[in-house]
Amino acid sequence: MSEPLAPGSVIGILGGGQLGRMLSVAAARLGYKAHIFEPGAAPAGDVAARVTTAGYDDVDALRAFAESVDVITYEFENIPTAALDTLEAIRPIRPGREALRVSQDRLTEKEFLRGLGLETAPFAPVASEEEMAEAVAKIGAPSILKTRRLGYDGKGQARLASAEDAPVAWAAMEGAEAVLEGFVNFSLEVSVIAARGLTGEVVCFDLGENVHKSGILATTTVPAKIPPRLSTDAALMAGKILNALDYVGVMGVELFVTPGALIVNEIAPRVHNSGHWTQNGCAVDQFEQHIRAVAGWPLGDGKRHSDVEMENLIGDDIDRVPQIAREPHAAVHLYGKAEARSGRKMGHVNRVKPATR
Amino acid sequence: MSEPLAPGSVIGILGGGQLGRMLSVAAARLGYKAHIFEPGAAPAGDVAARVTTAGYDDVDALRAFAESVDVITYEFENIPTAALDTLEAIRPIRPGREALRVSQDRLTEKEFLRGLGLETAPFAPVASEEEMAEAVAKIGAPSILKTRRLGYDGKGQARLASAEDAPVAWAAMEGAEAVLEGFVNFSLEVSVIAARGLTGEVVCFDLGENVHKSGILATTTVPAKIPPRLSTDAALMAGKILNALDYVGVMGVELFVTPGALIVNEIAPRVHNSGHWTQNGCAVDQFEQHIRAVAGWPLGDGKRHSDVEMENLIGDDIDRVPQIAREPHAAVHLYGKAEARSGRKMGHVNRVKPATR
Repeated sequence: MSEPLAPGSVIGILGGGQLGRMLSVAAARLGYKAHIFEPGAAPAGDVAARVTTAGYDDVDALRAFAESVDVITYEFENIPTAALDTLEAIRPIRPGREALRVSQDRLTEKEFLRGLGLETAPFAPVASEEEMAEAVAKIGAPSILKTRRLGYDGKGQARLASAEDAPVAWAAMEGAEAVLEGFVNFSLEVSVIAARGLTGEVVCFDLGENVHKSGILATTTVPAKIPPRLSTDAALMAGKILNALDYVGVMGVELFVTPGALIVNEIAPRVHNSGHWTQNGCAVDQFEQHIRAVAGWPLGDGKRHSDVEMENLIGDDIDRVPQIAREPHAAVHLYGKAEARSGRKMGHVNRVKPATR
Repeated sequence: MSEPLAPGSVIGILGGGQLGRMLSVAAARLGYKAHIFEPGAAPAGDVAARVTTAGYDDVDALRAFAESVDVITYEFENIPTAALDTLEAIRPIRPGREALRVSQDRLTEKEFLRGLGLETAPFAPVASEEEMAEAVAKIGAPSILKTRRLGYDGKGQARLASAEDAPVAWAAMEGAEAVLEGFVNFSLEVSVIAARGLTGEVVCFDLGENVHKSGILATTTVPAKIPPRLSTDAALMAGKILNALDYVGVMGVELFVTPGALIVNEIAPRVHNSGHWTQNGCAVDQFEQHIRAVAGWPLGDGKRHSDVEMENLIGDDIDRVPQIAREPHAAVHLYGKAEARSGRKMGHVNRVKPATR
């Protein structure tokens, strides 16, 4: 495909959470319609042309969905392989299967990154009590055990303060294959929100600096306080990853900044929470950038027009919205979720400031 | 109502064009759902939780619509009075009826503005051939005859180059009551996009400078090239209008800048094409500002973080989108309309530049 998707075309989005919601709005802004596929409640449905409510094991629903759209993308990486097979037989999926295969499995992902010559935290596979002991002997403690699949926002993880915690940590995996990761002594974590278009062009947004609380992203501040040389290195690393995957779309690449090197923490083959600042900092935000890539448009440039601090509104934080709404330069983005459970991302606020250079 | 509308509430929007579409997205961003009422094709439906397709004479549909929403607003001022009566008996309409009564009729509007001590173009009512002759005698030529009701984007208008054109101009009205307006010798036209909240606070966005082509807005450039004193005067004039109408929501006020004074061209009791620049120039844009007002939120401040030139994409202009998409600081907004007819607004582009002070 060398021509962009025709105006009025339908972009199928797997997942109806806040990322699907903001992708849907971006699709509309470029003249497309969004069709959401989501088994559960779909806040994205409030801003989508159509919603299919069905499970990823519902082959008929998957087929009907695929046939009703022109291209398929997704807001999360843990889509069952069988569902992808069904969909891909009918319409293109962007980003492609290789990105999903790599990022669905922490071990595969780390091996892929090492294979590109990029640094990661030290790691060792753990599939049994025996391997757990070997892994602790190799990686040491403190360290962190994570399931190979299906973890996010601190779920499916167990910390080892010392080697004695190994049995409890392994038990917490409930038999799931895992990876033991050594702690990295980093001064800060940054995100590269990178995009690759259908013609292979790569564009990175300005780097954001992340702060996590309780394993969940709390804030992203742009610009990140790192030297320009490291920004360039980070962009080159992201480009290497995208090219190796023949990637189409936006990817979030989390990096640890250490005295010696930039270390890849993890990659997410989708728009990313640490890229929400772009909504109020750039002419083309990460959601539109993703749709542009998926639809075969030229990519927007990733330079910010303003500095931004993005703060996630998690659980009860939503109660602060009336105060935040009074701040003169605050842009509030709420996700339309019915219930404010603890740890649940309810919205975010972008605080806009004049750009520093 | 002193509490803001509860999260998850439904905002009913009369009209499903591009303004309703962008209002719907803003409503979602604040955690609300939008329900569109539109007799025809509704591009807004692509980003709304619900759409009712029915005519303004369909009392049952109007009632069901009103009962399904928490508050009603609109994207255009020419809503039939009977429909408003039906709706208002069930739910509040914001902005209120007085704003609609005044702005639905050019003559009433001009008399209202004069009553506030504001300047307008010279005008005279024309309801017959006789009055036409009297009006030309009073106003002279060049001048312009406009229907009192239902004109927009240059429709329902006839120009008089000289007094001899009077009979042809009057015939063009096809019996509709009209107003003859004298031409104003202005150096430029500016827009105040003003908002008034439920508690009476008034906020104006930075002034934009408008250029029309063939009676349709072509570009709005911010900041407008006018002295700060005039900006203040313009904001005070807008405030006077909003307060007099006990207005709730965003209003577009078009002003002619003349050597002697600021002259009110017309007011529109809704979000306005000349306020589209705010989407990429402000933390809170005109669409969110309107929803904030209607939902009882505090208003965003109207200061821009960036300079913007907004260009409308009309008819075939849509063919330039591939080139525009390559410009580094251009934000494209397409309306999802199926067919690019001549004179039809298909989208707009906001070109973002660092803010001048």
